[in-house]
Amino acid sequence: MQKITELFNIKLPIVAGGMVWCSGWELASAVSNAGGLGLLGAGSMHPETLREHIQKTKQATDKSFGVNVPLLYPEQEKIIEIIIEEGVKIVFTSAGSPKKWTRHLQGHGIKVAHVVSSALFAGKSEEAGVDAIVAEGFEAGGHNGREETTTLSLIPAVRRATSLPLLAAGGIATGEQMLAAMALGADGVQIGSLFAAAAESSAHLNFKQAIIDTEEGGTKLMLKQLAPVRLLKNQFFKSVEEAELRGASVDELKELLGKGRAKKGMFEGDMAEGELEIGQGAGYIKKIQTVQEIINQLTEEYNKAKQRTNTLPTL
Amino acid sequence: MQKITELFNIKLPIVAGGMVWCSGWELASAVSNAGGLGLLGAGSMHPETLREHIQKTKQATDKSFGVNVPLLYPEQEKIIEIIIEEGVKIVFTSAGSPKKWTRHLQGHGIKVAHVVSSALFAGKSEEAGVDAIVAEGFEAGGHNGREETTTLSLIPAVRRATSLPLLAAGGIATGEQMLAAMALGADGVQIGSLFAAAAESSAHLNFKQAIIDTEEGGTKLMLKQLAPVRLLKNQFFKSVEEAELRGASVDELKELLGKGRAKKGMFEGDMAEGELEIGQGAGYIKKIQTVQEIINQLTEEYNKAKQRTNTLPTL
Repeated sequence: MQKITELFNIKLPIVAGGMVWCSGWELASAVSNAGGLGLLGAGSMHPETLREHIQKTKQATDKSFGVNVPLLYPEQEKIIEIIIEEGVKIVFTSAGSPKKWTRHLQGHGIKVAHVVSSALFAGKSEEAGVDAIVAEGFEAGGHNGREETTTLSLIPAVRRATSLPLLAAGGIATGEQMLAAMALGADGVQIGSLFAAAAESSAHLNFKQAIIDTEEGGTKLMLKQLAPVRLLKNQFFKSVEEAELRGASVDELKELLGKGRAKKGMFEGDMAEGELEIGQGAGYIKKIQTVQEIINQLTEEYNKAKQRTNTLPTL
Repeated sequence: MQKITELFNIKLPIVAGGMVWCSGWELASAVSNAGGLGLLGAGSMHPETLREHIQKTKQATDKSFGVNVPLLYPEQEKIIEIIIEEGVKIVFTSAGSPKKWTRHLQGHGIKVAHVVSSALFAGKSEEAGVDAIVAEGFEAGGHNGREETTTLSLIPAVRRATSLPLLAAGGIATGEQMLAAMALGADGVQIGSLFAAAAESSAHLNFKQAIIDTEEGGTKLMLKQLAPVRLLKNQFFKSVEEAELRGASVDELKELLGKGRAKKGMFEGDMAEGELEIGQGAGYIKKIQTVQEIINQLTEEYNKAKQRTNTLPTL
């Protein structure tokens, strides 16, 4: 656990995922100020919007923070340039090859973590020279691995494949789950859904309310023929489900998805037609809390679970 | 953890799932002799075959053992009658209502555990009076819950819903995963895949070899319109995948599945056309081991992970 906290110079081994439409400067700086690592989600920002958020984050916190860059982003050269110009010290890359930017970023003194969904790609990321690995399981919201390996199945395999600092992601929404991730071999956790519904998240209030209303089993991994994404079960979800059941083609699914649906739902608050990306952790979220309240609850649950686990007998 | 070991009078909090075509008297008695709880898998036995396996298990061990009864089994009245006649002390019920047999079995001094895939049904099982809960996640082989809740997501919710002795199942194939299950709030684990490939499993050697050859991502939950089942990716899997992608109807899928495919694959060794049910844990299985070797490895990994986890700082 030390390794992650030392690498990023943070107090708690908790990273808030850089989520599209949720992770602006308010969320990132609140997480960093509470002792975790806040990430800005570049995936839903125009380059100059990202610059503004970086500058505001720097004003709002003197602690470490970073930027998540999905490598399928069209304007990534510009994004990377701004990250370097603005002196950001930590970048998480995802949805692409870790070879693409790692050395370039490190050449500017930036620590790089890469998100993977298999032990195989954890090994490839280590070869590419990354400083840390995020291993994300089937439970996660947003875009997921095609192999559907869950966090429980994934982490020990990744731990055996690499000795790099390792964050577990996907399905972590309670302190018990944090401790379980550590027991599996992770050095820390990356948490999404809990922070998507935080007071400081830039998501639309309707989306936060929908997360709160989500119960056990209220999400499902869909659109596996395009890029698999875990969706909250709203009206748009039902259209996708119906299309998939009747064997819709990739082109039909693309047309159904269209453009801008995630923004429409998560940022503009259209709960019927929006694409609502959220993880299985949503089932644990019962109210909108501040980042500080969320982190207090996580650490309290973690400490309690740890105390209990410490008393288990050796077998 | 005490609770499970005391309830079943076993040394280790490890139950071997009662798996169709794998869990005969040799596997069940070996697990019980090694300190865990062995279960016979009634789901693939004619009633009189089950009687024979119960009698042989009693000859092979003086330790606790039990029988798993899937409640979709056609001859279950007869099965229950034989279980009572033969003096079996522990029954695990699955795939049906816990109200159906719990009181009847308990009236004959039998402890009853029921398998669920949601916190909601854990609560209903407690209301039905069961002695213990098995909460089984998306990772599991065999027939799975429709909600696709993973073990990591499921266990804390079930723990909050009931104070009954709780076994975690699905994706547990290493000692780290056992400890993680405990950290999540389970009192013990039910393990399937590892024991399906054990030397003492009655599965066909071809199936055990196929499990060993399975790598990360080598299984997938399929046939969700019938009863969801996690399949090893063989030729039959590909036929199902192709049918589902083109939007095959429930009737077409039923016809494709036909009858006796699980037996054909898992028991008779047809690796092309058989239905090969196995969990995500398969990715961790590298050779055929005896039950004693499997349990030694699990406890060793568990103890090592526990030692490491004990040294984590309080947050």
